[in-house]
Amino acid sequence: MNRDARIIAVRQNVLKRNDLVARELRQEFRTAGVFVVSLVSSPGTGKTVFLEKTLTLLQPEYRVAALVGDLATQNDAERLARSRAPVRQIVTGTFCHLEAEMVRKSLEGWSLAGLNFLFIENVGNLVCPASYDLGEDLRVVMMSVTEGEDKPLKYPPIFHGADLAIITKFDLREAAEFDLRTATHNIHAVRPEMPIIEVSAKKDIGMQDWLRFLFSAAGSGEQKAVGRKQ
Amino acid sequence: MNRDARIIAVRQNVLKRNDLVARELRQEFRTAGVFVVSLVSSPGTGKTVFLEKTLTLLQPEYRVAALVGDLATQNDAERLARSRAPVRQIVTGTFCHLEAEMVRKSLEGWSLAGLNFLFIENVGNLVCPASYDLGEDLRVVMMSVTEGEDKPLKYPPIFHGADLAIITKFDLREAAEFDLRTATHNIHAVRPEMPIIEVSAKKDIGMQDWLRFLFSAAGSGEQKAVGRKQ
Repeated sequence: MNRDARIIAVRQNVLKRNDLVARELRQEFRTAGVFVVSLVSSPGTGKTVFLEKTLTLLQPEYRVAALVGDLATQNDAERLARSRAPVRQIVTGTFCHLEAEMVRKSLEGWSLAGLNFLFIENVGNLVCPASYDLGEDLRVVMMSVTEGEDKPLKYPPIFHGADLAIITKFDLREAAEFDLRTATHNIHAVRPEMPIIEVSAKKDIGMQDWLRFLFSAAGSGEQKAVGRKQ
Repeated sequence: MNRDARIIAVRQNVLKRNDLVARELRQEFRTAGVFVVSLVSSPGTGKTVFLEKTLTLLQPEYRVAALVGDLATQNDAERLARSRAPVRQIVTGTFCHLEAEMVRKSLEGWSLAGLNFLFIENVGNLVCPASYDLGEDLRVVMMSVTEGEDKPLKYPPIFHGADLAIITKFDLREAAEFDLRTATHNIHAVRPEMPIIEVSAKKDIGMQDWLRFLFSAAGSGEQKAVGRKQ
């Protein structure tokens, strides 16, 4: 087998195994009644500040938790802990994405029962996470107004595999000369009709739209995540 | 061999082969007297606008060319072609980085002789490109003021492997509440004494500092790239 064929074969095995673990995870999440959301974006798009705000807004009424992946540092887990939600850091070393097995290991010893929402923040990367199912119910792809409107066209797989697009740092749209029409057009060129929400977690723009979307997504089907804290 | 050991073995073979090709490329570049600069950053940091500006500024007096890597689209090559420099796009498909072999293939049929500078814009990614030598003389890692000051700590290998850090979108530093001192501290925590230049290619800030650095780097040693167009 030549070098390229060997790499492809190894990669397919890894993906096949990942899909099996993801399927088991999804079943576990369903049984426990927890709605699982994963976040993917470039480094620096603002996943962590968005997640911190989301956890803080949900905390009074819902039981929430988060896993956060990074090559190095516990910084994000420390930032997210300010929300007082339980948070665990997954340090990936040189891996440019999370895998289902890392999620499973990271959840060991945690009881999922009674949890309403679990958030998984992936490593900042617009390429690698695209192929790895983590067992999540909702995959959110994020891009900031400062990154340029062309990102969906240049990184199609990750936009294609997402359920919702969130445009972050919307307070900077004028300074960044961001063109929402073009961005929307490009997102829909890759993933027709994907819902899009504009937010600024820092300036509290669009966060209620996001929460409404989240409740609606969690409530559809089995109404599993809509029960509040007792 | 178990799965992880197999992946590591394949990866090491790929890297070993890449290093061999990169060494040959470096020798070719040296013989041709061309100074080669590669750019790495997140998606949306502004590599392309920075490169377009650089090519335009160099064009009157120097022979310049560029290779640009992306998963999909020829958009960047089209944008860079506005500088009137010769540009080729490398479409990587699902690869999250360029490899030396891709660079070599992309250069086929091009004469390097007489060229002063060749720029290689990598795929937007702060993880994957770190391990792949492309035969370049200077590797520039870029981060924008909107990405947050913590990027070097969270993506250490790519900062560690670079020769120069460029902070982009410096015109947005106040809107983004960017803290240059912290960013500098974090860059130097990963790569002590790495030179740092702040720029805004859009607003023409810092571009002359960058060119001075470039000439100085190209001129050191063999004075190879400092000859101007005849």
